[in-house]
Amino acid sequence: MSKNLTSRAEDYSKWYNELVVKADLAENSAVRGCMVIKPYGFAIWEKMQAELDRMFKETGHQNAYFPLFVPKSLFEAEEKNAEGFAKECAVVTHYRLQNDPENPGKLRVDPQAKLEEELVVRPTSEAIIWNTYKGWIQSYRDLPLLINQWANVVRWEMRTRLFLRTAEFLWQEGHTAHETKEEAIQEAELMNNVYSDFVQNFMAIPVVKGLKTESERFAGADETYCIEALMQDGKALQAGTSHFLGQNFAKAFDVKFTSKEGKQDYVWATSWGVSTRLMGALIMTHSDDKGLVLPPNLAPNQVVIVPIYKGEDQLKEVTTVADGMMKDLRSLGVTVKYDNRDTLRPGAKFAQHELQGVPLRIAIGARDIANGTVELARRDNLTKEVVPSEGIAMRVKELLKEIQESLFNKALDFRDNHITKVETFDEFKNVLENKTGFISAHWDGTAETEDKIKELTKATIRCIPLDAKEEQGTCVFSGKPSTRRVLFAKAY
Amino acid sequence: MSKNLTSRAEDYSKWYNELVVKADLAENSAVRGCMVIKPYGFAIWEKMQAELDRMFKETGHQNAYFPLFVPKSLFEAEEKNAEGFAKECAVVTHYRLQNDPENPGKLRVDPQAKLEEELVVRPTSEAIIWNTYKGWIQSYRDLPLLINQWANVVRWEMRTRLFLRTAEFLWQEGHTAHETKEEAIQEAELMNNVYSDFVQNFMAIPVVKGLKTESERFAGADETYCIEALMQDGKALQAGTSHFLGQNFAKAFDVKFTSKEGKQDYVWATSWGVSTRLMGALIMTHSDDKGLVLPPNLAPNQVVIVPIYKGEDQLKEVTTVADGMMKDLRSLGVTVKYDNRDTLRPGAKFAQHELQGVPLRIAIGARDIANGTVELARRDNLTKEVVPSEGIAMRVKELLKEIQESLFNKALDFRDNHITKVETFDEFKNVLENKTGFISAHWDGTAETEDKIKELTKATIRCIPLDAKEEQGTCVFSGKPSTRRVLFAKAY
Repeated sequence: MSKNLTSRAEDYSKWYNELVVKADLAENSAVRGCMVIKPYGFAIWEKMQAELDRMFKETGHQNAYFPLFVPKSLFEAEEKNAEGFAKECAVVTHYRLQNDPENPGKLRVDPQAKLEEELVVRPTSEAIIWNTYKGWIQSYRDLPLLINQWANVVRWEMRTRLFLRTAEFLWQEGHTAHETKEEAIQEAELMNNVYSDFVQNFMAIPVVKGLKTESERFAGADETYCIEALMQDGKALQAGTSHFLGQNFAKAFDVKFTSKEGKQDYVWATSWGVSTRLMGALIMTHSDDKGLVLPPNLAPNQVVIVPIYKGEDQLKEVTTVADGMMKDLRSLGVTVKYDNRDTLRPGAKFAQHELQGVPLRIAIGARDIANGTVELARRDNLTKEVVPSEGIAMRVKELLKEIQESLFNKALDFRDNHITKVETFDEFKNVLENKTGFISAHWDGTAETEDKIKELTKATIRCIPLDAKEEQGTCVFSGKPSTRRVLFAKAY
Repeated sequence: MSKNLTSRAEDYSKWYNELVVKADLAENSAVRGCMVIKPYGFAIWEKMQAELDRMFKETGHQNAYFPLFVPKSLFEAEEKNAEGFAKECAVVTHYRLQNDPENPGKLRVDPQAKLEEELVVRPTSEAIIWNTYKGWIQSYRDLPLLINQWANVVRWEMRTRLFLRTAEFLWQEGHTAHETKEEAIQEAELMNNVYSDFVQNFMAIPVVKGLKTESERFAGADETYCIEALMQDGKALQAGTSHFLGQNFAKAFDVKFTSKEGKQDYVWATSWGVSTRLMGALIMTHSDDKGLVLPPNLAPNQVVIVPIYKGEDQLKEVTTVADGMMKDLRSLGVTVKYDNRDTLRPGAKFAQHELQGVPLRIAIGARDIANGTVELARRDNLTKEVVPSEGIAMRVKELLKEIQESLFNKALDFRDNHITKVETFDEFKNVLENKTGFISAHWDGTAETEDKIKELTKATIRCIPLDAKEEQGTCVFSGKPSTRRVLFAKAY
């Protein structure tokens, strides 16, 4: 199977599209821009969800569920937010179909069933949630309100790509309310750190933490924190965002609270989200020309055992050994699958598990049993070795840890080798044409320069890194004075 | 708080509506018929989800995700299904809003952004899923296909009630494909049994397993299995359904497979689902005039500890004891919360936990510490006792088991006392007017009689119980011969 995969060097974009489909992660559906997430892809997403959900709860958040639809008038309430999403939203206008008198057997919209007010399918839920919070918040005793929602959202994107940009996608959106500006900013920073920890430690993807420039901010936010990752083709990918919303939504929906001192004030807000887009980041960070490479933390099966046998007797013998091994592995918390399908030869199974990124493959044959060995193959570096079956479970457990770390370090090396400091606009353009990756450059802080650079190079300011040091310099484009570098890149 | 709750005797329906809101389970939203599931209600739903998901996976099912939207032409493909849902579906007709030239600051649908084909917001996903399965199924090797989806669906109901009937609701829908009719029927029965086990053992709600009559079947099914529960007001509630779909969807979407013998045939299908409606069943089965009563399996907090103290020193002392107790409880797998809020008095806390159905409450005061005791209060029967704090964790663990069983038995007694055998239509009407509950009666098997009875009494055939015995009799309405009894009731 894997030999059919286009190589990254040949056509990176085609490689990605093929991989997503061939590894059984997702496919396009009959609905423009909407994807089907297949069981294998969804199992990976479920692992992400479980870990994120645990982290959210550990930081004091609770889940809830708000309506899919946002009445148009609520949608309009926060001006910038409405403007930001109006151009790409699905709108429900009717609530019934009827038999089409002109086409027997067909249905049409019932003109009698027009809604008095159109409903927007949520592109994000600030509007419907803040309209609800109005009823939940009266006093400082009701604060902080720390809520998360796992949901589907719809943004009518014109150019879509599986996981990276789809009309409907799955995500989580946190929406919190606080007494003070400081507390809300702390929350926005905390959640950006939760995202960064999750993406780095769990997904093995290094990220830069930073702030968005004003033009790249979430529509309705006063400040947007983000984590930015770098893909193997040198393009950046925004992996998560956490917004300090100021009092914008509280004002739009009139959400005030009485403080301990009896004063009335608007509450302070944050919102933060990551989505199935992370699947795209996962794929493009670790995978290779053979297919998907999964960090052990995210692999639905961390180990697969393939029996090599001729006839029923050998299969029985191998199965007995495999059963014992699986018991040991499971007792160490390792997920393992025994691939004893009789419809495929071992070679075809190897190819499939390689394509689907199973971190470790164990092959057991009659000779192995005689020798007290197994064949152990690593997906990440494609090495194989014959090892004693004695103590294999502990060895696997340690190896999985090693693979997780090794994938992160490899991605970190790549990323660090693709941050280029430039001083002139020629250097800037040169990086984009050759090495690609992040460009660390001085910027004069104006939207005008930012727009101009985008127009000329398609590179955008990915973020103002939080750890950027004060440094005197001059803007790479305008030559005006600047006090710190920002990261530019072309981006997904 | 609880004293504000209308009693069941006074107005059952009002009691329910108030309880849902006051116990912080859900509330109505700004969108007609759509609810907000509040954190406490959602935590209960999450417990249901986790257990069901475990049971689905244990029976070989995998999760996946399919689009929210169904293009109208796919929706039309299975005639009965389309007809069954066309009258109550939300329809997306446009994909953009624009500034309204007549109302500055307002948005309107952009007439230029009309979709070529309308999109139906899924009322159920058979159409979009079977259109996808067409690409996934070629040979017997691809079967059985056992997939589940957790999703939101929309049915534009005219009369809605929190959890019981809402325009948008959350559910899971299983969609499976099989080689043979027998295997598909087995799957439909298996999943109805999974539902029955879950609802009885986990939710402590007794159910009758049965088949729907033709007129009550799912639109597009050849047979609908169901579980029916009885609420405290004597009305029935359909708690879950599992459909044998025959080859209806396979034919509508042309999904054929090649058998082992090389023959081509349409595949056989099932679908099955339970929804947030189960929250309604939970509330109406166990709760009382003081508020919610939760079976321990579903309680976000199985135990709450309330400190009774004067001054900081006493609080510290109590907290030390409570900390030890919580450690012991958690090590036994009991979920426990320490309610040390300083904004509420103990009495107000007691009332809130009673209203929210926390199964066990432990109160600890200075005197208790001196005596080596705690006060232990059961929510289900409202009894209190002072018990030694020594060995409390084990005692709580056992008590939770006892409460779970006791709630089931109480509900079972009620249900069994509310199944009345009748032989005449006068007896039939008499039961509906007085005792209510299920009526076990002979029926001649015709839709005509079923409709007539419904018209006259509002009672419907809830199911033909699977364990019904062959028995010669005459139809309670038409006097025609009948060979077994069915269960009638008014229903939610």
